Amino acid sequence: MTQTQTPDVSRFDRGQRALSDIDGEAGEAVVAALADIAPDFARYLIEFPFGDIYSRPGLDLRSREIATIAALAALGNAAPQLKVHIAAGLNVGLTRTKITEILMQMAVYAGFPAALNGLFAAKEVFARHPKPAETA
Amino acid sequence: MTQTQTPDVSRFDRGQRALSDIDGEAGEAVVAALADIAPDFARYLIEFPFGDIYSRPGLDLRSREIATIAALAALGNAAPQLKVHIAAGLNVGLTRTKITEILMQMAVYAGFPAALNGLFAAKEVFARHPKPAETA
Amino acid sequence: MTQTQTPDVSRFDRGQRALSDIDGEAGEAVVAALADIAPDFARYLIEFPFGDIYSRPGLDLRSREIATIAALAALGNAAPQLKVHIAAGLNVGLTRTKITEILMQMAVYAGFPAALNGLFAAKEVFARHPKPAETA
Amino acid sequence: MTQTQTPDVSRFDRGQRALSDIDGEAGEAVVAALADIAPDFARYLIEFPFGDIYSRPGLDLRSREIATIAALAALGNAAPQLKVHIAAGLNVGLTRTKITEILMQMAVYAGFPAALNGLFAAKEVFARHPKPAETA
Amino acid sequence: MTQTQTPDVSRFDRGQRALSDIDGEAGEAVVAALADIAPDFARYLIEFPFGDIYSRPGLDLRSREIATIAALAALGNAAPQLKVHIAAGLNVGLTRTKITEILMQMAVYAGFPAALNGLFAAKEVFARHPKPAETA
Amino acid sequence: MTQTQTPDVSRFDRGQRALSDIDGEAGEAVVAALADIAPDFARYLIEFPFGDIYSRPGLDLRSREIATIAALAALGNAAPQLKVHIAAGLNVGLTRTKITEILMQMAVYAGFPAALNGLFAAKEVFARHPKPAETA
Repeated sequence: MTQTQTPDVSRFDRGQRALSDIDGEAGEAVVAALADIAPDFARYLIEFPFGDIYSRPGLDLRSREIATIAALAALGNAAPQLKVHIAAGLNVGLTRTKITEILMQMAVYAGFPAALNGLFAAKEVFARHPKPAETA
Repeated sequence: MTQTQTPDVSRFDRGQRALSDIDGEAGEAVVAALADIAPDFARYLIEFPFGDIYSRPGLDLRSREIATIAALAALGNAAPQLKVHIAAGLNVGLTRTKITEILMQMAVYAGFPAALNGLFAAKEVFARHPKPAETA
Repeated sequence: MTQTQTPDVSRFDRGQRALSDIDGEAGEAVVAALADIAPDFARYLIEFPFGDIYSRPGLDLRSREIATIAALAALGNAAPQLKVHIAAGLNVGLTRTKITEILMQMAVYAGFPAALNGLFAAKEVFARHPKPAETA
Repeated sequence: MTQTQTPDVSRFDRGQRALSDIDGEAGEAVVAALADIAPDFARYLIEFPFGDIYSRPGLDLRSREIATIAALAALGNAAPQLKVHIAAGLNVGLTRTKITEILMQMAVYAGFPAALNGLFAAKEVFARHPKPAETA
Repeated sequence: MTQTQTPDVSRFDRGQRALSDIDGEAGEAVVAALADIAPDFARYLIEFPFGDIYSRPGLDLRSREIATIAALAALGNAAPQLKVHIAAGLNVGLTRTKITEILMQMAVYAGFPAALNGLFAAKEVFARHPKPAETA
Repeated sequence: MTQTQTPDVSRFDRGQRALSDIDGEAGEAVVAALADIAPDFARYLIEFPFGDIYSRPGLDLRSREIATIAALAALGNAAPQLKVHIAAGLNVGLTRTKITEILMQMAVYAGFPAALNGLFAAKEVFARHPKPAETA
């Protein structure tokens, strides 16, 4: 699985910083888990979603995490990534109340099971996340 | 298809106001289209999504529309509702740039076809929506 | 696209009878449309879904159509087949009210857009189907 | 996460009775699990799916559970809810044979993996459910 | 759950051979697991996917497994079957590199979470599969 | 929607060549259609799927198109992209028979409606594509 393409340094660096700011240790864990099976994919993951998309001006990180949490809860087939992004939402300053509201709203667009599974994922993430003073 | 349950007046009124504020004429058109096949469902649509969910404190309407646009673009199987909510996003003050950013971001979570189909839906909605001065 | 396998006559005959009883002309139209691109697939369609599954004892045809209408409305990505099976539901004796109830219920499990799109599909099918006296 | 809306007592009571009749202890467990993260969502779950939809005349509970089991097996992304509703199907009088037939039929509409995963979910639920005399 | 239809011997035999060649012991395990709940479905699984589809001329088995691995990774709601078919891909001669490439490509069509979950499934399957000399 | 990032020239050039080889005019049409709404997304589309993924060694283009056609047919919610990639399959040398086999096989993994809709999309694409001598 050799890969002769020269990595695009600036996208990679920008992406790594964004991944670290948003996903914290969970992001690093995903990159590490890819090292032996698809190291190039770890690079793409850093470069495209984080170096290209999340680094764009035009939409703040809190709004981006609202979109991601909503999409992953609605799709309902990516539980590990939903948990990573519920934690990412907390990391970038979404309150627990706001995250809970997003997940409840998914009952309307993807059904009650999708909302319930999203809420139970949030419950698990909230339990291991230090609770800030300001949120309900 | 008689229905003996007394409608819950306050949820219905609150929902109708929210539906009108958010979806405008598109919301009324959906309610009208249900009149002959499932009038009770029109009532539920007003009461639960709009009277219960969108009327809740805890998440502002712009954030709610970010979540809805993201979810519908990701699911990719509800084109008419995605268009209604892209227009709703504009109605509640999301800029065209922000909506475009949300849809582009869906390439990461639901693939490039979902993002492309979302962007082409937005193009259609933007074309028939009066363009405000402030947005790109 | 030659195919050397001998068709299983009894499954085929049983399937063709079931297809005709359930889907009527819409079933024949699908088989005809496959003739030039994938004639073997037309045979499989008759043999497996209709010759094997719908012909089984253990669940009556009305219950089978309830399951199919619910599944296709929930999946939301097979509009032509949903319409065929709403008509099939009427063919095997489900009332319009019952079909409408099934579709409304899908709001709970697959979201309001799935239910709305199902109801509008039903509206279209009901409009071109002769209306029996007994149903609402 | 305060909520100033007055609960609609009759929908809530009617829903709670329906939830208890249909889902039994599994329904109560879901409501309890929501208590600390989204108590309002527990109320919505009781009021809309159970108080509004399942309580409607026009479709009997057995037919409603056929629709729900079919939809959840076809969607394939809500395993816990599928198990709750396979048990609910038994609670309202669907036989094991009928439930097995519904799940097999999903191979036609959502593919063999969806049917297989549904059948293995049923196997698990049947194993811990007291087996009545009359069913295969 | 009696079933009076005579099994179609040739499709069944052809299917059982194909199932054994492709899925090896994992295929037999699925058939065995169905024995007490839906034995007819085990027969259909052998007859239709393996006796009818995989046994067709016109597309070699490696190409068929590429299609199956791609579809299951994209759908993202059938983890056990994806693992069975990653192993099946190895069984019919796809290299680890090729399988990894297919899964990475799914990021484009179904999003990064689908690709990541596919890659982690492959990592698990590769770890318990004897590694041939020729592949990366 | 300004974008200050310097485009990565080599990925872009490599991607544009791949897009042209694979999708032909249909690829250029998508890029043109994005020009007024999301020009950066056109660039990402060229750079990531085509410059990064399709340009990788390790899997030939025919195999990549098998994977893409299978995934898009299985997902069933991206009809325009499925047609583009059925044409792309022909462009890179897949025969009509092979494409038809892939689509038929999707009945096993995503259900008969997904396979039927894929086959009808192929029928449409085949009709407007010059037919080479060698294929069925």
